[in-house]
Amino acid sequence: MVFFDPAGAAAQSHPFDKGPDGLLKSSRQHLLQRNLGERTMKLYDSIGPNPRIVRMFMAEKGIEMPKQTVDLRGGENRQAEHLKRNPHGQMPTLELDDGSYLSEITAICEYLEEKNPTPAMIGATPEERAECRMWTRRVDLNIAEPLANGFRFGEGLKFFQNRVPCAPEASPGLKMIAANRLQWLDGQMADREYLCGKRFTLADIFLYGWLDFGSQVGQPLDPANSHIAAWFARVGQRPSVKA
Amino acid sequence: MVFFDPAGAAAQSHPFDKGPDGLLKSSRQHLLQRNLGERTMKLYDSIGPNPRIVRMFMAEKGIEMPKQTVDLRGGENRQAEHLKRNPHGQMPTLELDDGSYLSEITAICEYLEEKNPTPAMIGATPEERAECRMWTRRVDLNIAEPLANGFRFGEGLKFFQNRVPCAPEASPGLKMIAANRLQWLDGQMADREYLCGKRFTLADIFLYGWLDFGSQVGQPLDPANSHIAAWFARVGQRPSVKA
Repeated sequence: MVFFDPAGAAAQSHPFDKGPDGLLKSSRQHLLQRNLGERTMKLYDSIGPNPRIVRMFMAEKGIEMPKQTVDLRGGENRQAEHLKRNPHGQMPTLELDDGSYLSEITAICEYLEEKNPTPAMIGATPEERAECRMWTRRVDLNIAEPLANGFRFGEGLKFFQNRVPCAPEASPGLKMIAANRLQWLDGQMADREYLCGKRFTLADIFLYGWLDFGSQVGQPLDPANSHIAAWFARVGQRPSVKA
Repeated sequence: MVFFDPAGAAAQSHPFDKGPDGLLKSSRQHLLQRNLGERTMKLYDSIGPNPRIVRMFMAEKGIEMPKQTVDLRGGENRQAEHLKRNPHGQMPTLELDDGSYLSEITAICEYLEEKNPTPAMIGATPEERAECRMWTRRVDLNIAEPLANGFRFGEGLKFFQNRVPCAPEASPGLKMIAANRLQWLDGQMADREYLCGKRFTLADIFLYGWLDFGSQVGQPLDPANSHIAAWFARVGQRPSVKA
């Protein structure tokens, strides 16, 4: 359990000062909690596309919080201290105000949105949220996961073979599936600015994070997917991609 | 677009009559909408574990609505009429009151929970929902998806090869991954009644639906996973498994 250090808090900016109207009050409440020595949310962060997606999501919403870097390359995320935070050994993990831990990036982003609804990056209505969740899961299951495992079981095998169950012979097939589903998605993007139409959402952040990662590990986007290529360039203009 | 038939409505039970207190009023509003000939939600349903998970979720919540069966075996879900509902060609799909369509089972269940919060099968607070979403995604990515694709690319290949991109050589490895992650999960279940502790949630329904399917298609649960086996028997007592 990590308790907040009031002395350290004073030296930091308030986490929600930069947010839109309505967040100032909660920012002050948050500061009060800090000064009373109570816990605050904290992100256990690392290299890799999953933490990056959460950081992009937070940047788009103007959320700041303390971060602690876990040495993914050195395997710190598979050691006892992090396994107490996330028994699945993955990154990132969010520590909540009550000291409990939350993993899985979609669950983390949903939680951050519930606690800080504005600006809505999942949706402001049940229908908007439904649309974003539908597209996020399509990207998650059909593109991100086969792309990621295609890498883990292929170029990343030496790194991952002692960390997760690996099936090297599945790597080419999984890459083929991700590429095939991107081709399908390209057709869907013909008339869309973003996955949810005019709204830039978690679904776009998710896809961007994985496509950007893919381009670095031997799975670049086929430029024949011209609608996605245009969308990728559009999203790449956003300041949040640097998060 | 499907408009509701008021004559047919009169012969049916009201969808929320069986719900807990507080739903009666919405039930009456719903009936009023029906009598005015407005649209109502409708589930495009079929055989298979995904629609079954949504039906179980609805049964646990006491939600009833009109259903239309799509002939999955005959490939109706891959034909133009269903592709208008879900361009990804999968089942199930929910038609919303405004005539739009929603796919992906987690998005459908989240939407149903938002519209009918009680009894909560995802969660009644942001923290409860976060915990359920975390477990649901762990099951989804690490167990359900490799189990499903292990089947689609293996025993189900003849059926699926003209429907989705298939990688037959990946089948054994994907089954190994699902089995490995079930072994991990068994350790996590040692002190738990359900995935979210005392709460029976969507995460359990999700896992149950896929394990039950696995047992029918050559991926039975290894009985050495004794905690999951006990949990499976416990969940199997619930009336909703017949939905």
